[in-house]
Amino acid sequence: MLLPPGVIWRGDSVIDGVPATLDMLRAAGKRLVFVTNNSTKSRAGYLKKFTDLGLNVEAEEIYSSSYAAAAYLQSIDFPADKKVYIIGEQGIADELDLAGIKHCGGPEDVGKEVALAPGYAMPHDADVGAVVVGFDRHLSYYKIQYATLCISENPGCHFIATNTDARTHLTDAQEWAGNGAMVGAIKGSTRQEPTVVGKPAEFMLADIATRFGLKRSQICMVGDRLDTDILFGAHGGLTTMLVLSGVTTEATLLAPENSIHPNLYTGQLSDLLAAKDSLVSA
Amino acid sequence: MLLPPGVIWRGDSVIDGVPATLDMLRAAGKRLVFVTNNSTKSRAGYLKKFTDLGLNVEAEEIYSSSYAAAAYLQSIDFPADKKVYIIGEQGIADELDLAGIKHCGGPEDVGKEVALAPGYAMPHDADVGAVVVGFDRHLSYYKIQYATLCISENPGCHFIATNTDARTHLTDAQEWAGNGAMVGAIKGSTRQEPTVVGKPAEFMLADIATRFGLKRSQICMVGDRLDTDILFGAHGGLTTMLVLSGVTTEATLLAPENSIHPNLYTGQLSDLLAAKDSLVSA
Repeated sequence: MLLPPGVIWRGDSVIDGVPATLDMLRAAGKRLVFVTNNSTKSRAGYLKKFTDLGLNVEAEEIYSSSYAAAAYLQSIDFPADKKVYIIGEQGIADELDLAGIKHCGGPEDVGKEVALAPGYAMPHDADVGAVVVGFDRHLSYYKIQYATLCISENPGCHFIATNTDARTHLTDAQEWAGNGAMVGAIKGSTRQEPTVVGKPAEFMLADIATRFGLKRSQICMVGDRLDTDILFGAHGGLTTMLVLSGVTTEATLLAPENSIHPNLYTGQLSDLLAAKDSLVSA
Repeated sequence: MLLPPGVIWRGDSVIDGVPATLDMLRAAGKRLVFVTNNSTKSRAGYLKKFTDLGLNVEAEEIYSSSYAAAAYLQSIDFPADKKVYIIGEQGIADELDLAGIKHCGGPEDVGKEVALAPGYAMPHDADVGAVVVGFDRHLSYYKIQYATLCISENPGCHFIATNTDARTHLTDAQEWAGNGAMVGAIKGSTRQEPTVVGKPAEFMLADIATRFGLKRSQICMVGDRLDTDILFGAHGGLTTMLVLSGVTTEATLLAPENSIHPNLYTGQLSDLLAAKDSLVSA
């Protein structure tokens, strides 16, 4: 069962009944994978958030888009003498470190500015073989130009997006511009399309299935958003279950203009407690 | 005759023979309009650049995308009690001032950061009725989020791009990420398409024709770039003339994969001096 954070917590509060539901699912022999498009944290960073909220989760149960970026680079045998330029935050740098992939940019480039003078050309590292673009509260023209130079001028340089979500949830008081903005900036200056590794793209799902030894028919994608989680599951051939405790309302789901339909839907994750007997016997 | 800056100067040097060519064209009764997608300067700011380079140009001969944004808002009778949020530099603010249109953001928001705290929502002005996105060396997450909120939450808020050029020429030593990056960021977070007012969109041409009392058949678009200037002219039903003194080379023009063909092409603008007699008699 794949679980995005929106079905587990809202802001800094665990949604009612979630801990008991996770315990019940594990006891029923279900494997749980917590999947998130948020790339600002590594898997270890996410584990800390789970622990701080009092949730008992294993590090191997977490799959973030920061990790997906590193896993994608490993899957294409990214050369050991090349490095990654990061637009994004610490999570991507940490996951690249764990994968033994060299990198620059990201947190190191916060606050850097372009100092213009007649005839000035910004230097860039010819060894950058991939640009990874994740959510970055410190996006700047310096970073945009650096990434643009690498993608345009370094032969074969990959352009990888952790995800292209229009919105993200920095706080639960409002919707915040998401990594769609950072990726859109680099698309706009390079006129190139990125390889997306997070939801709803194919890579993350294929990698999870391989890593955990699962067939797609065995996987249920739970989600609170039609346009990311449920679409991701449906495209991937998974069973999908929408919970109404997050972004998508029942009115949106049932509206005639909605074209994304989950296999199942329910109010919140803990409704599964009542379905315990059928789960165990399945 | 419409002339973009790339046919007039390169970096800080006037291209050989341009002053004499402009004098000859004026003497032959040709109206000259200097058109630029650069929105960082107002028309007055551009006039200063011409003057500093020793070129004799009238203020009314200049048409910048900063001015196009203001002219577009006037053309749709933008309400006097509404204001514009600017992503961009001083040129847009100055042209909006001249048009009597209230504005916020732009240079005022340089250096502002999002200070996150649990439950924090960024406030935004409900009176913003349009967001104008132009090239901005100080693009920030603060500005992206502010523009996204206005477009998403203020009913009927317009999303206007001065242009969507992938590259711009901050210095002549390298290509620089252009306003395509800033516009791409806001497209990525709002999932909306902007109204483009600069080249190669229709608005700028229609407004020039009206303002100067010209029929399209009377206008020749000169340019050094196939994908902006010549495309703009061809779409608009103008005669087009490519000069090879700038971005586009003869090899690119004549390559089988090129699908954009000007009516005429020549090495540089001053080649028109030799054609003087046919121009005068035309």
